Amino acid sequence: MAKDKAKKVRRPRAAPPKGFRDYFGAEVIERKEMLDRIAEVYHRYGFDPLETSAVETVEALGKFLPDVDRPNEGVFAWQDEDGEWLALRYDLTAPLARVAAQYRNDLPFPYRRYAMGPVWRNEKPGPGRYRQFYQCDADTVGAPSVAADAEICAMLAETLETLGIPRGDYVIRINNRKVLNGVMEAAGILDPADPGRHGKERGIVLRAIDKLDRLGAEGVRALLGEGRRDASGDFTEGARLSAEQADIIMGFVEARRADGARTLARLGELVGASATGAAGVAELETIAGLLDGLGFGADRVLIDPSVVRGLGYYTGPVYEAELTFEITDDKGRPRQFGSVAGGGRYDDLVKRFTGQEVPATGVSIGVDRLLAALRAKGRIGGSVEGPVVVTVMDRDRMGDYLEMARELRGAGIRAEVYLGNPKNFGNQLKYADRRRAPAAIIQGGDEHARGVVQVKDLVLGARLAESASLEEWKQQPAQFEVPRAELVDAVRRVLAGATRGGA
Amino acid sequence: MAKDKAKKVRRPRAAPPKGFRDYFGAEVIERKEMLDRIAEVYHRYGFDPLETSAVETVEALGKFLPDVDRPNEGVFAWQDEDGEWLALRYDLTAPLARVAAQYRNDLPFPYRRYAMGPVWRNEKPGPGRYRQFYQCDADTVGAPSVAADAEICAMLAETLETLGIPRGDYVIRINNRKVLNGVMEAAGILDPADPGRHGKERGIVLRAIDKLDRLGAEGVRALLGEGRRDASGDFTEGARLSAEQADIIMGFVEARRADGARTLARLGELVGASATGAAGVAELETIAGLLDGLGFGADRVLIDPSVVRGLGYYTGPVYEAELTFEITDDKGRPRQFGSVAGGGRYDDLVKRFTGQEVPATGVSIGVDRLLAALRAKGRIGGSVEGPVVVTVMDRDRMGDYLEMARELRGAGIRAEVYLGNPKNFGNQLKYADRRRAPAAIIQGGDEHARGVVQVKDLVLGARLAESASLEEWKQQPAQFEVPRAELVDAVRRVLAGATRGGA
Repeated sequence: MAKDKAKKVRRPRAAPPKGFRDYFGAEVIERKEMLDRIAEVYHRYGFDPLETSAVETVEALGKFLPDVDRPNEGVFAWQDEDGEWLALRYDLTAPLARVAAQYRNDLPFPYRRYAMGPVWRNEKPGPGRYRQFYQCDADTVGAPSVAADAEICAMLAETLETLGIPRGDYVIRINNRKVLNGVMEAAGILDPADPGRHGKERGIVLRAIDKLDRLGAEGVRALLGEGRRDASGDFTEGARLSAEQADIIMGFVEARRADGARTLARLGELVGASATGAAGVAELETIAGLLDGLGFGADRVLIDPSVVRGLGYYTGPVYEAELTFEITDDKGRPRQFGSVAGGGRYDDLVKRFTGQEVPATGVSIGVDRLLAALRAKGRIGGSVEGPVVVTVMDRDRMGDYLEMARELRGAGIRAEVYLGNPKNFGNQLKYADRRRAPAAIIQGGDEHARGVVQVKDLVLGARLAESASLEEWKQQPAQFEVPRAELVDAVRRVLAGATRGGA
Repeated sequence: MAKDKAKKVRRPRAAPPKGFRDYFGAEVIERKEMLDRIAEVYHRYGFDPLETSAVETVEALGKFLPDVDRPNEGVFAWQDEDGEWLALRYDLTAPLARVAAQYRNDLPFPYRRYAMGPVWRNEKPGPGRYRQFYQCDADTVGAPSVAADAEICAMLAETLETLGIPRGDYVIRINNRKVLNGVMEAAGILDPADPGRHGKERGIVLRAIDKLDRLGAEGVRALLGEGRRDASGDFTEGARLSAEQADIIMGFVEARRADGARTLARLGELVGASATGAAGVAELETIAGLLDGLGFGADRVLIDPSVVRGLGYYTGPVYEAELTFEITDDKGRPRQFGSVAGGGRYDDLVKRFTGQEVPATGVSIGVDRLLAALRAKGRIGGSVEGPVVVTVMDRDRMGDYLEMARELRGAGIRAEVYLGNPKNFGNQLKYADRRRAPAAIIQGGDEHARGVVQVKDLVLGARLAESASLEEWKQQPAQFEVPRAELVDAVRRVLAGATRGGA
């Protein structure tokens, strides 16, 4: 009967939920090291860390209608015992706005904060597209001057260079939503006297421009008009602008000229009589001037009207860091690496809570994309140093082996005793290989009686196994015997590569 | 009409969900520094980092029945679009068991991993009790030998000492669930031939012993019998053991003797004829012997039968790190700081997935408790160095001020330009104070024309403000003028305290 019962036990599936993944060893260490270096730059710029919880109320995140039965579009949400909807944060900006509102009387303003951590999106997972991923943000809340935007752009450039992306391999592109709004006024799809009108069309226009990279000018133009059918046959509805209206928008998208001054002049023409548009052009001019004064010229920062950013909450300058070096894509074709960070000014996010406008601007780095870029540039990707493995020849003398590991650690050397079943010695050496151990320590009964240990240089051993002659192999220079008291010194010599001189 | 509409807008509440909190500045930095130092120790012991996602399937977490409509007792759970229940992890051990099962053919075994990160509990929040908190774990999976348990205990001791908890201020207490099981056999509430019987009673006994600290021997004894009514009038049902049975259990709880050998001898008597019990006593003997050989004597590690750990999944050795120094509690009474870490052996957790037994042992550090302990010992709690604040006297010369900050940063000095509204200069100095700025830089039109800047030593200024005479105050030694080109050097002198020599 006990057997029958056991049969019925349904075993859980050993897998994370769809769209989630695990990060092992070097992946965790490399990300941490990158974030540590970014934090150093942010710190030097006067930003302080803030860590909010992963969970927020849906109303604070503010993307959803309270009357939707299950407001989980795009986020992971659930109802708590009091009926309140909670959700995992989908970015680090919405929680910052909540904090800035909550602590508006306690924090020093401008409040300069950085934040690093996972965010969650309840989206369809795909290759390389996960439902939990890291962001790394820096924002200044309560800074009306576009000097704050200029500073964030300068800091972003410095961050990339600090991480090993040299000048010429990246560019910060800057634009301004006010200019876009001015152009939309000129195109007749934004009426300053009735800003709610044409909202749907403007949303489609924004998303269309944001896809310029992927769809090209023709694709964007189709989305400004009737719509676009993609390769898979799916149809995306367009903004149904007239040809004249679409011309004005496309003129904006393609307004970049040979230098910043000419681009600004062209934008001035495009916004026509729009006061908002003119203010936006003036802001861009100020930002470009400040950055130029700091030594960030057109080789690092440029005004590019095709950058609009997808998020709806931006109100002024927007910016994006793009890596310009080529990589090979999945299909073997060369392509530019692309965007790794972006941000902009969002003057109304805190207002949602307080009713008072609190100007703010900030940037978000896509941590996984930037890590991939650093790997592509060979800046990271070394493997983690494995531990010296003390093997177990005689399980009754476990105390001796633990003591050896203790001595090695005391000398600052990463070390461990093999703690699996010691019966099969070959498994112990296989384990040491898999851990990328630089050395294995061996002491059987005979060695113990003679007061010695064997030290096996696994780096040299691997090299010999690949290329050594039988004669060399027989000499076994990769393994040598030392008095027990000299264990630490002998391992130090192996780690320094000193025993590999002859190979 | 627009006004009417605005009235209807319901503003979101600027607060995190109940039981969650935000961590600012120094709090984030101190925790990070502590975790970095712990990670260094874990790394030296051969442990590799693993980061699993915050979200797991409820079936993988394995605490809940699949037929419960909403399985959110203790966890935050929700149903995904396919109807599968997902939840935020409630500890780092359950995800490790899932990973060890999922990657059993890919990972080197024994798999030594550490993990640090938040976990979530859907429990009633209380003072100092949050629904998101950090854990920091190290586990060895696939290690049948109790040498693995001994090593974790040694590492735990070394970790505490590395963080600044000296010997004498902590003790690692060790026990073994097998011994408790042996005692339960002797008391007639565990039948090896029918292990399912008396499960409820054993659960009550386990939880009762785990509360010894708080309830005292009398309270535990009440819970072994009919039950216990607490000060608030709430009644907790007891295990309804006979007086003789309760005697045996209490004999176990109070089995600690003057030294380990005598405690082990007493435990040997208590488990009587139980084979499991005898095996447990032998394991404790082995662990104590190994630790003693490594220099961890009774001043740091001791066998204490009153330690059982609350979690149901432990199968062998269990251990706990207790801080023995006194602190003052909320009511002003002195008390021992108490437990900051605990763990043990759980040989069946991976088996849930694979059907094969995978022996494992590990420890979890309560990060917030340990941080509080380090604060209580004065090991942390210094404030974060504030930035030098470059004030804005003339908003048309923002470029000049940004350049000053850039130069200071280039010299490795934390610096920023005041980016709020510059109209009220007093606000700028107040801001500098609130940021704990060591210095403020001032350059008005006059100074600019003369090619100089004012450097204000805010540390000295604060000191003068507290104690200076009018004469000293008039001399204003806390503020001095230097040529613009000497800005960085002057700030360096201020940071070194050189200008405060006369105060």
